[in-house]
This record gives sequence, structure tokens and C-alpha cells, in this order.
Amino acid sequence: MTSLIDLRSDTVTRPTEAMRRAMASADVGDDVYGEDPTVNALEERVAALMGHEAALFVPSGTMGNQIGMRLVAEPGQEVLADADAHVVTYEMGAAAAVFGLSTRTVVSDGGRLDADALIAQVRPKGDWHLTATAAIAVENTHNRGGGIVQPLDQLQKLWNWSREADVAVHLDGARLFNAHVASGVALDTYGRLADTASVCLSKGLGAPVGSVLVSSAERIAVARLWRKRLGGGMRQVGVLAAAGLHALDHHVDRLTEDHEHAQLLAKRLGADPATVETNMVVLDDVPAPMLAEAAKAQGVLVSQVSATRVRLVTHLDVDRAAVERAADVLASILGR
Amino acid sequence: MTSLIDLRSDTVTRPTEAMRRAMASADVGDDVYGEDPTVNALEERVAALMGHEAALFVPSGTMGNQIGMRLVAEPGQEVLADADAHVVTYEMGAAAAVFGLSTRTVVSDGGRLDADALIAQVRPKGDWHLTATAAIAVENTHNRGGGIVQPLDQLQKLWNWSREADVAVHLDGARLFNAHVASGVALDTYGRLADTASVCLSKGLGAPVGSVLVSSAERIAVARLWRKRLGGGMRQVGVLAAAGLHALDHHVDRLTEDHEHAQLLAKRLGADPATVETNMVVLDDVPAPMLAEAAKAQGVLVSQVSATRVRLVTHLDVDRAAVERAADVLASILGR
Amino acid sequence: MTSLIDLRSDTVTRPTEAMRRAMASADVGDDVYGEDPTVNALEERVAALMGHEAALFVPSGTMGNQIGMRLVAEPGQEVLADADAHVVTYEMGAAAAVFGLSTRTVVSDGGRLDADALIAQVRPKGDWHLTATAAIAVENTHNRGGGIVQPLDQLQKLWNWSREADVAVHLDGARLFNAHVASGVALDTYGRLADTASVCLSKGLGAPVGSVLVSSAERIAVARLWRKRLGGGMRQVGVLAAAGLHALDHHVDRLTEDHEHAQLLAKRLGADPATVETNMVVLDDVPAPMLAEAAKAQGVLVSQVSATRVRLVTHLDVDRAAVERAADVLASILGR
Amino acid sequence: MTSLIDLRSDTVTRPTEAMRRAMASADVGDDVYGEDPTVNALEERVAALMGHEAALFVPSGTMGNQIGMRLVAEPGQEVLADADAHVVTYEMGAAAAVFGLSTRTVVSDGGRLDADALIAQVRPKGDWHLTATAAIAVENTHNRGGGIVQPLDQLQKLWNWSREADVAVHLDGARLFNAHVASGVALDTYGRLADTASVCLSKGLGAPVGSVLVSSAERIAVARLWRKRLGGGMRQVGVLAAAGLHALDHHVDRLTEDHEHAQLLAKRLGADPATVETNMVVLDDVPAPMLAEAAKAQGVLVSQVSATRVRLVTHLDVDRAAVERAADVLASILGR
Repeated sequence: MTSLIDLRSDTVTRPTEAMRRAMASADVGDDVYGEDPTVNALEERVAALMGHEAALFVPSGTMGNQIGMRLVAEPGQEVLADADAHVVTYEMGAAAAVFGLSTRTVVSDGGRLDADALIAQVRPKGDWHLTATAAIAVENTHNRGGGIVQPLDQLQKLWNWSREADVAVHLDGARLFNAHVASGVALDTYGRLADTASVCLSKGLGAPVGSVLVSSAERIAVARLWRKRLGGGMRQVGVLAAAGLHALDHHVDRLTEDHEHAQLLAKRLGADPATVETNMVVLDDVPAPMLAEAAKAQGVLVSQVSATRVRLVTHLDVDRAAVERAADVLASILGR
Repeated sequence: MTSLIDLRSDTVTRPTEAMRRAMASADVGDDVYGEDPTVNALEERVAALMGHEAALFVPSGTMGNQIGMRLVAEPGQEVLADADAHVVTYEMGAAAAVFGLSTRTVVSDGGRLDADALIAQVRPKGDWHLTATAAIAVENTHNRGGGIVQPLDQLQKLWNWSREADVAVHLDGARLFNAHVASGVALDTYGRLADTASVCLSKGLGAPVGSVLVSSAERIAVARLWRKRLGGGMRQVGVLAAAGLHALDHHVDRLTEDHEHAQLLAKRLGADPATVETNMVVLDDVPAPMLAEAAKAQGVLVSQVSATRVRLVTHLDVDRAAVERAADVLASILGR
Repeated sequence: MTSLIDLRSDTVTRPTEAMRRAMASADVGDDVYGEDPTVNALEERVAALMGHEAALFVPSGTMGNQIGMRLVAEPGQEVLADADAHVVTYEMGAAAAVFGLSTRTVVSDGGRLDADALIAQVRPKGDWHLTATAAIAVENTHNRGGGIVQPLDQLQKLWNWSREADVAVHLDGARLFNAHVASGVALDTYGRLADTASVCLSKGLGAPVGSVLVSSAERIAVARLWRKRLGGGMRQVGVLAAAGLHALDHHVDRLTEDHEHAQLLAKRLGADPATVETNMVVLDDVPAPMLAEAAKAQGVLVSQVSATRVRLVTHLDVDRAAVERAADVLASILGR
Repeated sequence: MTSLIDLRSDTVTRPTEAMRRAMASADVGDDVYGEDPTVNALEERVAALMGHEAALFVPSGTMGNQIGMRLVAEPGQEVLADADAHVVTYEMGAAAAVFGLSTRTVVSDGGRLDADALIAQVRPKGDWHLTATAAIAVENTHNRGGGIVQPLDQLQKLWNWSREADVAVHLDGARLFNAHVASGVALDTYGRLADTASVCLSKGLGAPVGSVLVSSAERIAVARLWRKRLGGGMRQVGVLAAAGLHALDHHVDRLTEDHEHAQLLAKRLGADPATVETNMVVLDDVPAPMLAEAAKAQGVLVSQVSATRVRLVTHLDVDRAAVERAADVLASILGR
């Protein structure tokens, strides 16, 4: 077999030929000195898209999220998040290990934001015993929730409350472009409902590396110092930023294809299409190890979430023909 | 009115005359050099009581718990605990802020240990994304659970599982003496079901200051370095250890009185006595601020847990007459 | 032999009978709730003595120094100090480990403060590469410098410069009372030349445990949260504060005796008395291990600083007769 | 004027056309899953070059150094380094802020390694007061020392001592390739005298981004977890690794040209050529701000180290003609 169909994650996309050309011809400078014109252009563009004053290119979504939370919380304080939040589950305890921030989680209905449930858990600042809640982190779309899009009214409700309560909101927008395309809600509408937000160029958008953190100019100046301190200051990194700019030009609208492909997979494999809101399909009550192994033998890679749950993610490197072939392979194994 | 009846917490006890005499006549030395004979005697005694090799006197339960967890978890790893655990709620985010440890919580039925529910949340070490679970913290009795005693079979189940799973167990035994007296389970039976445990001398036992951390000799040697680093190394602190030794001699068995007093309060105030397992009584569905204020005006202090919940804690400084008077005052206000 | 003459450090003093009586009769409350009247009285008194708004009782000089530095520096910034500073040498790397603060040292002439030498090393805030200098720590008297008193003009020079430079000053006043008595400079004169200062009750003053951190009311409110987070929040700790108050009443002026005893030792043992400014005598070019062992065999304990350096410290528990006996023993061994 | 001659640092180099082609055609995969073949090839190659078991690609020298030091030191311990070390001066306090490590510095003769001077400052582990020395960091070539090459006999002496003393050695090899080319000492000879070492691809070697950390396989497995935790885990980062491989193929031997260019500058500008060991020229006793500004007006950028010191760095983007022109410009301004 010549090529694998990799549905494990949308992080696996490889840069296209056009994107590679954009990278190869990028105008670059030393970004540690703030002199890389391509990085600067990307930062300005993403800040504007998100409705924020300033932006910072960082090597990963993890760095974007973690610095973003640090900008609005101090060591000893806590950040509230969903029990399945990426910032808690998949970022290796960075909030505590690197920044001294506690994270505390609230169980939700499949990752769906419930503003009231989070608000009810907030603890005040200044108490002589309690761990104070400084911020709430929201993930949109929600990875472990199967790519669901957060309801705008809940985001708005949380934001309105937070202004009164002196609690900040951080948006983990690793897949915010998917939410934007699926919901039709403008990026800056989402962006304006958060004090800090991180968006990824390396997932659905197909860039090889990179995320962008947005916030106020004052906070981003602090973020720049933390990026250097964490070892995320890079030199002629315009070669990567060029991929990000190319992705913004060419790979946003096409996310609808990924979403259609996910619908196609859901229908063929017996998942409820109504639960598939963006580019992820969750198959429950399947023999995950067997299914993964059998599919791999036929050139289809899937992600095992648990012993009985498998996740499929559509993306730039899986075109319609590949999706159909994957559906055939998986349906055949599952006898569906 | 000459003296308040303070039912806010058992932390408010003042040393008795006999305890003060023990303190005033204590033989002391420089404990930073390990030369305080009274501290050494206390540490040896508590280690033996708990069935552990070694012990360390620390200035607070918070320091005992936090160093205890650090002994069995590394920066970047997480400790699982109950959603209402003291180590998460009331210790000001120390695990993350001081030690780089994440804490993650699991909702329980009123603080009651459910080994399976915790075990189901454990995440493996060595994964390239997941925050690894290094330890599980158990609280016995459970403060926010209203002083409930943890079921021995669940403690045993968790311990047996943990030996296979390479996950440590830390016991927050701030009120372990209450659990011991109420359940009849030996202290060292509880102690042997944990890798590290902290017990407090300053709550039900009535000493003014101090907790003791127990574990293996090797771990306690490390704990001694951390105690100094946190600023908990004290000099002629045998004056406090003497109070602890006196409390062990004279104030353990008498905890049954506190438990009887709590039963008395529960019965008089319409709480279900079956829910009162040790020295705490929780009154639900009461107008907490009004009740607290009206009671204070009559010389009775209670703790407001929420707008509709009040907590009463019996202890050494509240004798039977005081309990009966408090019951009268509160019953009268509540019209019960 | 009935009793040792312990010249290792002034930390080894045991509470006197009068101090023990003061402790035994102390009026106490729960200091975590701010309700211990004796602690409150001590804090108010030390704040006033030092010319600061507010004060906080802490279990050790290490906690006082480390929280004091944290109040004026943020994680990622650095504190400059003398190459032999206690905060760098003897506090187990707490600044970095607990608070994320770098310490950087400047070599001085035997611990003597040279304001210009420190100022020359300061690095600016906001740079994209440099570790920013947030504070300078001064130690008075200087422990490893042999108890020397810092020159007032240098303290004043550093302070004046610091106001312009937006760099804070922390005073490690573990033995500030010795400096005060030796120099005649008022405590609040020293205090007003620092943003934060920690003084110890447990060294020359002879209390068994405790230090006091002073600063502005706003900073001390933050310090209270950090004290709890580090596990330094204690309950009826008025029993210790009473010893501190007793020491302030009875053990300050008598430090002159310790200083005279140090002079006596210097003269008898061939050290230059001019180098002995307070209660420490450094003997150089001696066979330290042999001397320490031979002295111990005759009931005199000394501190080995290096293979050829021994330190003697006079204090409350070594009266004139004991000093003379120690001088005899040591002179005899040294053949002086 | 069409193009600047940028002598501020060798970090400013832009990728060559050939390097860009190598990047554009790189075979890539998801490196967070360990699946990027180009990254894997680079890591294997650098590990072999350095005589170590394993290697890890990281986004910066700062991340390589900081993780490298963390691999051999625990929170609360200290790393000794030269007073002008990059890891202390230019990495924003990361050791303390991120990892809880103290750094302590020893003044040297212009950055030249003096093994005995460092060894004399080491403090033992396990003491109840002292901050324990876990590792010594060496920088080769030494940046603030003006690019000097560390003497092999001192490196060897330190290494031999360290094996007995249970103290680790970390090598900051940001410019180790310059040392190698200048001294003729093999890279793996240098590499084998360190427990952990970081080398940069983005300085003299001319890659746009990236460093490589080498150590034992066991330590590098831990480093991989820390890289992810710090946000340094990148996806199809083979596009950058390809630049590194290209640089290893084509840009190592040519460093001799940079060194010759530095000699040329030194001779023309009156610096002692004997002090110029690699690609840096330090001009002392010059009016730095004026010189920098006047040179910039004529298209030559230099780095101001202090008011009277300027640094010139030669590199891939400054050919002989440019060096000669820069020499003319600077000589003319300086009247030399």
C-alpha cells in the first residue's frame, strides 16, 4: 500500500507544495529582536482577526494556552476548566509545574460549556484559606468532547459575569477556526469574549508548526518575556509564520470539507451525525484495540480514546476518496 | 457574658493549664540540628503510633500535607483527591505554587471515599501528552464532608490497588484521632494504608500548634530538607512538642466526649444523628448569616459554610454545660 | 561534666525560667483567624520598632527572608546579594525552589556592604534577554562576615539610589538587634532603609522560635497569604509570641554583654578585637577539626567553618564564667 | 544603501537558497508522536557527533540549556556557572522561574574556565542548611568572554573531578562548532566531558531555528516530557531540522572563514588579534553609543555591550567584501 490514511488527529497534516513554496521564499529576520517581518505580519493579522490589540507567535498550542493562563493568574491561584479540558489533560501539568497555577475541573455534559456550573465553583480572592479562582478556561471546539462548538450564549453569559466578578476568561482556541466555519460566528466575536486566547495554525489549518496567543498589548509584552524564558524565542522563524499566513489565506474556508467528510464517516459508521459538529467522529461501544489494529493493517489509522471508544479526525491530508476508502475499511471491520 | 462558646472549629482550642505546665518545663534543644529531645520523643512516638519508620514535626497541617504529597509526586505530575478535599480547597494552591504539582478532583458522595471512582481517573506515567497521576490523597475524617470516617474497606481497596499501579497514597489525617476513636480502628491500621500521612495535634487534641508527618526514614530525611526550605525549621520547638506529647497522653480518649456532644447537638437541633460520625454537626437549610449573628449575640460562635449551611464543631474547650447552653441558644433561634 | 558551653551559634539558647513563665501564661487565640492577642501585640510592637506599617510573625528567619524577597520580586526576576549572604548560602535554595526567584551574588570584602559594587551589577527590567534585577538583599549583622555591622552610610546610599532605580531593598535582620546595640543606630533607622525586613527573636534575643517580617500593610496582607501557603500559619502561637515579647523587654540591652564576651574571647585567643564587632569571633589558621574535637572533649562546642576556620558565638546561655572557661580551654589547646 | 552589514550577532543569519530548498523538500511527520523522519535523522546525527546516546531537537538554545540543567539538578539545588554565563545572564531567570534551580556564579578571568575556582565553591548535598550544588555549567565558546575557546585541560580536570564528586557537568555549546573548528578538538571529545550538552544550529551554522540537547537515552526521554511541558513540542518540524542537517553538511568547515574575518577586523581596528579566538571581536575603550550610531548610518550594525565596549560578530551572511567594508567604516569612525 502506498500511503496511509491517518485519521488519528488533524495535527498530522503535512505542508502542501504551495505552503512549502511560501515558506521557502519567506522574508525573515531575527524574531528575538522583533525583526522578522513575516512573523510580525502574522501576529498583526491574527490580532486583528481575533479582535485583540496584540499577538505573539509561539511554537505550540500548549505554550499559547499556558502563557495565556499565566497572564491572567498568579502563582497560588487557580484556573477553573472543564473536566476534559486539553489544558488540564494533555499539557503535562504545565500550569502547576511551570507557573505555580492550580487547575480545578468541573464535570460537564460532554465538554459543553455550562457557564452557571463553572461560576458556582468560583472561590474568592484574599481569603486566608481558600485557593482563589483567577480565571476560567474555555475550549472551543472541545477536543475530548468530540469537536463540539461552544454555544455563543453560554460564552456571552460567562463573559458578562466575569466582568463583574473580576475573574478572567482564557480561550483555548486550538480549533477555533473549525468552530468559526461550523457556526458562522466571526472569529473576533469569539475573541472578544476572552481576555487571552490561543489559536493553532498546525491543526485544521495545516501549517507544520505554530500557534498564536492574543491579548492586550500590555499582556503580550509580558507574554514575550515568558516565551523567551520558556525557550520559545526563535530566530528566523518567519519560515514557519509564512506557513501560517498561507494557511489563513487558503485553508480556512476549506474546513467545511473536513466537516462534510466527518458527516460522511458518521453516516457510514453508524454514529449519530447530529453529534458531529466539526471534524471529529467518535465511535462508542466498539472494540477499540481490535478495530485500530485491523484498520491499520488496511492502511487506516484511528485514535483509541478508551477500550471501547475510537476517534476519527478529518483534515487537509484526507481527501474525499480517502475518506470513502476509510469508511469502507472501518465499516467492513465493524460489520456496519 | 464572660466567655464565648466557640463552635466554629476545633482549631480554636486553647492549651489547658496542665498542657501549659508541660510546655513550660519541656527539655529543649536546637531542632534544626536535630537536638531537641522533646521533639525527637514526639516524632518517635507518632511514627510508632502510625506504624511508620520515621516522623517529622511541622508547624501546620498544611505543611504536613503538602510536603507529604511532594514526597510521592514530582513537579509536572498530579495528585488526585476528592472535590472537597482540604488539600485542594483550603491550602491556598500550595501544591502547584510551591511544588509544581497539579491537583485534580473527583466528585464523591459527601466526601465518602469511593476507591473505584478515583482509580478510574488515574492517568499513566511516561505518556507524551497526559498529566501523569503520581498519588491519591485521602482525608480521614473528612472536613467538608462533616467529619465522616472513611470506610476501612475502601481504604484497603485503594491501598491494594495502589501497590500494583505504582501510584502512592497520601493520608490527610488532620482529624485521624477522631476517626480512630469513633471507629475503633487502630491508628497504625490507618497509617499502614498510606505511603505518607500527616496528623494534627492542634485540632481535636488541643495542642496550640503542630502536625506530624510520617513515612519511611528515607522520605522523612527528604522532608526535613523541604521543611527547612519552606521556612518550617524551628529552634527550641520542644516547647510545642511538649504540648503534643501531653495531648497524646491525655486528650485522645476524651474525643469520645466531643463525639457525644455532637450527637447531643444534632438531636437538639434536628440534624440526623446518623450523619454525625465524629465531632461535627452540619445544619442544612438554615438562614446561615442570621443564625450566626443571632447566636453570636448570645455568645455562641458557629461557622457559615454557605448561605444555608452552618457547621458546629465540638472540642476540648466546650464542655457538656457549654454544649447544652449552645443547643438552647441555637434551638431557640431556629425555633426547634 | 554537667553542662556544655555551646559557642556554635546563638540559635541554641534555651528559654529562661522567666520567659517560660511568660509563655505559660500567654493569652492566646487562633492566629490563622488573626485572633491571637499576644501575636497581634508582638506584630504591632515590632512594626513600630522598625518604622514600618505592619508585621507578620513567622516560624523562622528563612520564612521571613524568603517571603520578604518575594514581596518585592516576581518569578523570573533576580535578587542581588553578597556572595556570603545567608539567604543564598543557608536557606536551601528556597528563593528559586519556592518562589522562582534567581539570586545572584557579588563578592564583597568580608561581607561589608559596598553599595556601588551591587549597583553596578543591576540589570534592567523589560529586556528581552536579561534576567531583571528586582531587589537587593542586605544582611545586618553579616553572619558569614563574622557578625560585622553594616555601615550606615552605605545603607543610606543604597536606599537613596534604589528609590530612583525602581529596585527594592530587603533587609535580612536576623541579628539586627546586635547591630543596633553595637552601633547605637536606632532600629527604625535601619528599618526605614528597606522595603521589607525580617528580624529574628530566636538568636541573640533568646526566644525559642520565631521571626517577624515587616513592610507596608498592603505587602504584609500578601505575606499572610504566602505564610499560609508555605504551611507557616499556626494556631495558638501566642505561646511563642509571648517569648518574643519577653525577649524584647529583657534581652535587648543585655546583648552588650555578649559583645563584651566576644571581645574577651578574641583577646584571649589572639584574634584581632577590632574585627569583632558584635557577638562572633572568627579564628583563622587553626586546625579546625582537631580544635573542635579537643574542645568538645572538655565541654566546649565551637563551629567549624572550614578546615582552618572556627567560629565562636556568644549568647544568653553563656555567662562570663562560662566564657572564661571556654577561653581557657581553647587557649590551652591552641597553645596561646 | 541596499543591504546592511549586521555584525550584532551570528543569530541574525538568514537561510541560504540551498538551505531553503532543503527545508522545502523535507520529509516530515508529527514529531510529537516521534514520527518526523528528518527530526529523527538530525537527532541521531547530533547524538553521534557529540558522543552521546540520544538527542532532542528543541526550539532554542535557552530550552536546550535549561532542560539540560534540569536533567541533572533537582528543585532546591544549585548550578554553578561563570559570572558571565549565558545561562545566568541572558536566559531570563529560567532556571529558577521554571525549574526551581538556583544558579550561583563565580567570577573568572574573562570567562576562561578555571576548574579549581569552581570546584572550591561546590557545596555538599544533604546538609540541613546549605544549598546543595548539583551541577556546574560550562560555556564553550564563551559569549560574553568574546568567543574564547575553553582549555581542554580544564574541561578534562573538571570532568575527572566531577565523577568523584557526584556533581554533574552541563555544556552550553551554543557555539561549540566554533570551538571545534578553532581548536581542532573533536566535537565528541567535548561532548564526552559533559553529562548534558546543548548545541545551536541557529548561530554560526546559519539555520533559522533550533538547538539540540544530548545526553543519555534515559535522560533524553525525560527531556522529551519537559519539552512538551514547556510548550516546545512541535509537529512537522522536520522543515526546521532539514535546515540543521543542511548546516551540518555545508556550514561547519566554513566557520574558519568567520574566524579569519574576525582576525581581519581585529587587525584593522586595533584589537589584539591574540584575544580573538573565534568569530567575535571586542572593542574596548570606544564611545559605544556614538560608534554604533555612526556605523549604522553607514550600514554597519554592531552590538553595544556597555558604554565603552562594542562587540562585532562575523558569520555566514557577512562575506569578505562586507567585512572589509565594515572595517573601513569602523576604522574611519574610530580614526584608526
